[in-house]
Amino acid sequence: MKVRLEPAPIRGFRFAGVCAGLRNEPGRKDLGLIVTDWPVATAGVFTSNRVKAAPVIVSRERIKRGHLQAVAANSGSANCFTGKAGLKLAHDSAKALADELGCEHELVVPCSTGVIGRLYDLEHYRAGIRAAVDALAPDNLEQYARAIMTTDTHPKMVSATLRLGGALVTIAGCAKGAGMIEPKMATMLAYLVTDAAIRPPALRRALTEVLPTSFNAITVDGDMSTNDTLILMASGAAGNRPLDARDLVKFERALTDVAGALARELVRDGEGATKLVTVEVRGARTAAEAERVARQIANSPLVKTAFFGCDPNFGRIAMAIGKAGVPIDLDRLEVDLAGIKIASHGALHVEALDAAALKMKEREFSLTVNLKAGKAKAQMMTCDFSFDYVKINAEYTT
Amino acid sequence: MKVRLEPAPIRGFRFAGVCAGLRNEPGRKDLGLIVTDWPVATAGVFTSNRVKAAPVIVSRERIKRGHLQAVAANSGSANCFTGKAGLKLAHDSAKALADELGCEHELVVPCSTGVIGRLYDLEHYRAGIRAAVDALAPDNLEQYARAIMTTDTHPKMVSATLRLGGALVTIAGCAKGAGMIEPKMATMLAYLVTDAAIRPPALRRALTEVLPTSFNAITVDGDMSTNDTLILMASGAAGNRPLDARDLVKFERALTDVAGALARELVRDGEGATKLVTVEVRGARTAAEAERVARQIANSPLVKTAFFGCDPNFGRIAMAIGKAGVPIDLDRLEVDLAGIKIASHGALHVEALDAAALKMKEREFSLTVNLKAGKAKAQMMTCDFSFDYVKINAEYTT
Repeated sequence: MKVRLEPAPIRGFRFAGVCAGLRNEPGRKDLGLIVTDWPVATAGVFTSNRVKAAPVIVSRERIKRGHLQAVAANSGSANCFTGKAGLKLAHDSAKALADELGCEHELVVPCSTGVIGRLYDLEHYRAGIRAAVDALAPDNLEQYARAIMTTDTHPKMVSATLRLGGALVTIAGCAKGAGMIEPKMATMLAYLVTDAAIRPPALRRALTEVLPTSFNAITVDGDMSTNDTLILMASGAAGNRPLDARDLVKFERALTDVAGALARELVRDGEGATKLVTVEVRGARTAAEAERVARQIANSPLVKTAFFGCDPNFGRIAMAIGKAGVPIDLDRLEVDLAGIKIASHGALHVEALDAAALKMKEREFSLTVNLKAGKAKAQMMTCDFSFDYVKINAEYTT
Repeated sequence: MKVRLEPAPIRGFRFAGVCAGLRNEPGRKDLGLIVTDWPVATAGVFTSNRVKAAPVIVSRERIKRGHLQAVAANSGSANCFTGKAGLKLAHDSAKALADELGCEHELVVPCSTGVIGRLYDLEHYRAGIRAAVDALAPDNLEQYARAIMTTDTHPKMVSATLRLGGALVTIAGCAKGAGMIEPKMATMLAYLVTDAAIRPPALRRALTEVLPTSFNAITVDGDMSTNDTLILMASGAAGNRPLDARDLVKFERALTDVAGALARELVRDGEGATKLVTVEVRGARTAAEAERVARQIANSPLVKTAFFGCDPNFGRIAMAIGKAGVPIDLDRLEVDLAGIKIASHGALHVEALDAAALKMKEREFSLTVNLKAGKAKAQMMTCDFSFDYVKINAEYTT
């Protein structure tokens, strides 16, 4: 199965993306729809930030039933820290789409991303909904992906096709997010859709399986959004037979690859990012310890500025490893940077640093830390900290 | 009692700072000494990073006895991740000074700061020790402060005088550190000296009292050094009578002010810093929860870039508050930025943002968050994240 970085038509779904005038940028798409022809099996995960946006509160509740018919997502305003008025706006927004589609209100979820603390204009929104419903089409995923962008430089889409339960099944997805990204869960907004027939409990389990190695394994700046939302919808239009245990494992593997590729695209387009770095920690006593060390490295501003400077700065890596609070035997520690072993047996390989610096000039490389204390491992995808990260975030005003 | 940002002569101590040629910068001071005429009461705290530098391992052990006669601190090399050779180098370095002074080896502690993973040249070091011993003088604290600088733009010194136990007592201090700074404990290297007569157990307790509001309440980049060291020495030369409980409280208060001022200077000179921001979290249920929220705000790259851009970005502040995992009642939350209330009663005060943005142009301001859930509070001093932070750390090579 090959994951492609492009959309694919997917039976049972229609998409749209229009300009509703919710942001101060004439002509920029800011309202997107995902609509199914009937209520479809759905699972979702949401931010664990204690400050949750109104649409997250509404969506989290509605998704519990296991079926949805539509998603309405806007950029320009996150509808977060907007109190009762914000909750009403989230409800009214979903209702606007439900009324237009003629479906139950509870089958529609609202998603928002953008500036925190402000409402958007409901009349503009309603007019946008009408225009978007008119524009719905099966091959419009890219329009949707564009409508939810904020500081993203391009829309992110993935798709893959596999044979499952006697049918050809497609999984596609899109996501937005370039800053305020550290998992648990991250991404701000991500959507995975499939035409496979699969029941809500299996869908939920698949989503849980997929998270640790995809959206929860990425970081741009260690900051966790208030609006993080990941929704997975399965239309069943592929007409596969009911999936058995083996089929489900196959589906989860495919979903892992698709979600991983999408998550990777988010980091690659991280605010100001010039490098995509895969941080792998091996040889830990437990997976939790491996993850703690990987997160400290992946989030350290000093390590990330060194990536930007193509500086094989072992000292900062060692500092970040030690900061995790996990017992470390320095005499056993091994560190490979961009494929070059730069430290082992308690010594820095000074003579290897020039070669590592050269390899770090590439757009993508890996950093592998072997603690040699056990068999557990963890992986994080991160990017560098550049002048442009500061520029984007010092100038992107409220 | 007034804390001055300058050194003061302090009885019982002599200082020196010389160029020993340990760094590749001809003429730059890189070796500093603090020497007392007899073994004096001493307390110290060290990094909690699991990767500890060799001099930290040696100093931590030696300081347990409660008395020291000298500190030898070098910049240019951190002598960290240097294995057995590094431990031997730390021992030999202290021995070089002890031999020159004619004192017990165990009464001298080594401190190092600079590049991780490399040794420095012992012969250069020994020659430097001889030159530094010749240069020892009571009014040379500034030379010492200069010798330990790395990316600091200027030496940081403080002093204060108070009447204590029937005598006039002086407390002075110096510190270095501009990056890789987040407490627990931070600062990389800091030294407090006093001519008060005070016994080691009281000295240790005073240091513990002082930490939470000084060196453990600052952050530049959330990164914790492998070499953090804070040493407090009391020569007793002031000739005060033995301190009673009330005197000790008075001493601790004075030490708190001195240490706080010194810690503040570190943040003010944070790598690339253009702003000094005091983050205060009030109304928390517990001090630990208040601290957790304050740290999330003070370390958030998005909040720090907004400080740099003079952007009263409430959304990022709300995000950072929520990320701390502490239960938050959004309807009660109050946020004051640079003295302007920007949020309360569950609503953002949009009309106040321009005034806040204007006030943020100042070199120093505060951010106060009231959770209104209890009476506990915590404070952190932080700086902004600027282009220069990235520049300094992308270009400062191993």
